[in-house]
Amino acid sequence: MSDQPARTELSTLGEFGLIDRIASAVELVNPSSLQGIGDDAAVIDAQGLMQVVTTDMLVEGVHFDLGYVPLKHLGYKAMVVNFSDVCAMNAEPRQATVAIAISNRFSVEAVDELYTGMLAACKHYGVDLVGGDTTSSTSGLVLSITAIGAARTEDIVYRHTAKENDLLVVSGDLGGAFMGLQVLEREKAVFRQDPNVQPDLSGFDYILQRQLKPEARKDIIALFREMKLKPTAMIDISDGLASEAMHIARRSGLGVRIYDDKIPMDPLTIQTARDFHLDPSTCALNGGEDYELLFTIAQSDYEKVKGSPHFTVVGHMTDKASGYQLVDKQGGLHALKAQGWDALLKS
Amino acid sequence: MSDQPARTELSTLGEFGLIDRIASAVELVNPSSLQGIGDDAAVIDAQGLMQVVTTDMLVEGVHFDLGYVPLKHLGYKAMVVNFSDVCAMNAEPRQATVAIAISNRFSVEAVDELYTGMLAACKHYGVDLVGGDTTSSTSGLVLSITAIGAARTEDIVYRHTAKENDLLVVSGDLGGAFMGLQVLEREKAVFRQDPNVQPDLSGFDYILQRQLKPEARKDIIALFREMKLKPTAMIDISDGLASEAMHIARRSGLGVRIYDDKIPMDPLTIQTARDFHLDPSTCALNGGEDYELLFTIAQSDYEKVKGSPHFTVVGHMTDKASGYQLVDKQGGLHALKAQGWDALLKS
Repeated sequence: MSDQPARTELSTLGEFGLIDRIASAVELVNPSSLQGIGDDAAVIDAQGLMQVVTTDMLVEGVHFDLGYVPLKHLGYKAMVVNFSDVCAMNAEPRQATVAIAISNRFSVEAVDELYTGMLAACKHYGVDLVGGDTTSSTSGLVLSITAIGAARTEDIVYRHTAKENDLLVVSGDLGGAFMGLQVLEREKAVFRQDPNVQPDLSGFDYILQRQLKPEARKDIIALFREMKLKPTAMIDISDGLASEAMHIARRSGLGVRIYDDKIPMDPLTIQTARDFHLDPSTCALNGGEDYELLFTIAQSDYEKVKGSPHFTVVGHMTDKASGYQLVDKQGGLHALKAQGWDALLKS
Repeated sequence: MSDQPARTELSTLGEFGLIDRIASAVELVNPSSLQGIGDDAAVIDAQGLMQVVTTDMLVEGVHFDLGYVPLKHLGYKAMVVNFSDVCAMNAEPRQATVAIAISNRFSVEAVDELYTGMLAACKHYGVDLVGGDTTSSTSGLVLSITAIGAARTEDIVYRHTAKENDLLVVSGDLGGAFMGLQVLEREKAVFRQDPNVQPDLSGFDYILQRQLKPEARKDIIALFREMKLKPTAMIDISDGLASEAMHIARRSGLGVRIYDDKIPMDPLTIQTARDFHLDPSTCALNGGEDYELLFTIAQSDYEKVKGSPHFTVVGHMTDKASGYQLVDKQGGLHALKAQGWDALLKS
């Protein structure tokens, strides 16, 4: 028992004490954040820019498993997935609010861990935590984050504005977050059978990081400005390449064609998928949680992305009648499907 | 069994089906709402105004009991409490996002009821539902709403800007929402003992409405403009008059004095409190959920509120050293306490 970390009950702080504790850890850095935590609402000076707003809710037992996700990582990731949505509008994240429901199963130290992760993400992305709500929960932990970003009107990129024959481009590589999750779940199963076995996570650093500490591609947004490249449509990859490409196509009234052999994947992702008897491309197409940017560009902009280590052209937009297609490595045509993770693991 | 309303399982819709169903019920009315549901983020044109942002989370079993709160009312109230926070900044609510975690215990029809209530509130207040998130829950219903409002820089009113000797003013009347809750809980207890007994809610219309269908005082914000009155500080009453007055005082570095005999209460609230053997003033001071506005004004503005049916002067701000005081009907001085509901019912 003596090795247990300190445990302070949440009830010793109370709601206002908890809010004060959080507020004291926050320092506003954006000139646009006029009022943060401590009033009925935060006040944001839009500074003549458009404001983009996105909300995500994470539920314990549905979106995360505290059995293998440290609270600090959970906090970081919960913020990042929202910043990623802001980036997918070609906007820069600036403010965030956090609503949290938490049961007395959690200690003050646990809440500190969670906020440490959230504030680390805020600091890394230059975002101010400007408000939120804290409440008790009858069961697990529920986090709801709203992120607010800013962009010039002419810079905002929607999902529904892709054009026929536009090239479909993705940043970074795909499938890693999904394979990281498979490794974590395997080790958890081993641990359950024999708690004396130490988890064997060595050698999986890259894909574990992709799963546990993903990043939003704010750097890509900045790169677009430098390159004077404006995508015609954009989305971030939270549900997998197939699902997101189909979102752009459907919302733009088009079809889409993806080439299997063009999908960018890290060698570790490919090797781990094979070790798990999974098809690597399928993991990239349906695995999700990579938080890379998927966007379309006019063919006339091809020279701008050609040869870039950041971008890979994975396909192109077609007319609506052609539907959603996957071209396999032998040139065969298949219907593209948004399977989601469950279907992927059952198949 | 034949009298049961139709029940459609949520699984028949899926997440995207549910989002489409919600989106199809939404029509944007604000010129500032450039993009609503359907992209990575909503886009808002601030139109040169400051943006205010507030978030509230409601958890089943903590904030509401579906045993006596109809889902439509819950949806309406969940929106209104956020609009009230926006009004408390002297701003007008314009946009909202909703994140919802829901278990398969709820049917599509139940979710429709909830959104019908939320959208009724949006329509009543001229607010656009511009985004959100829907997810499954392992247990109850969790709602997290973020509301965004707009105001001119010079109109925004904070909590921390009250001045010594300012008058403390409240809109409407207090304690009704708390007494409405007591009536609902009494009838629920009776129903539990004997499910054949019909609940007796007749004659309690006003206080039941205060509890089940509160309104944000957007009309008061408009009235301030007409009256050319700008409060020096403002907060909305969600936790009770005592707690909110102390927030203004604490944040402004002042003390506050409230006069018991000045607290505005409806006769039904007073009578019901007495029937429950509760002190009416205590219910107003600590009951909460009235969503009236509590604000301070310079003494030179007294003529503007004097005789108004909308406003009651309940006290004034003092120097910090005088602390937080309640003056009873006999002129005796007591320490003002923010008890909260639990303490109130135990006392």
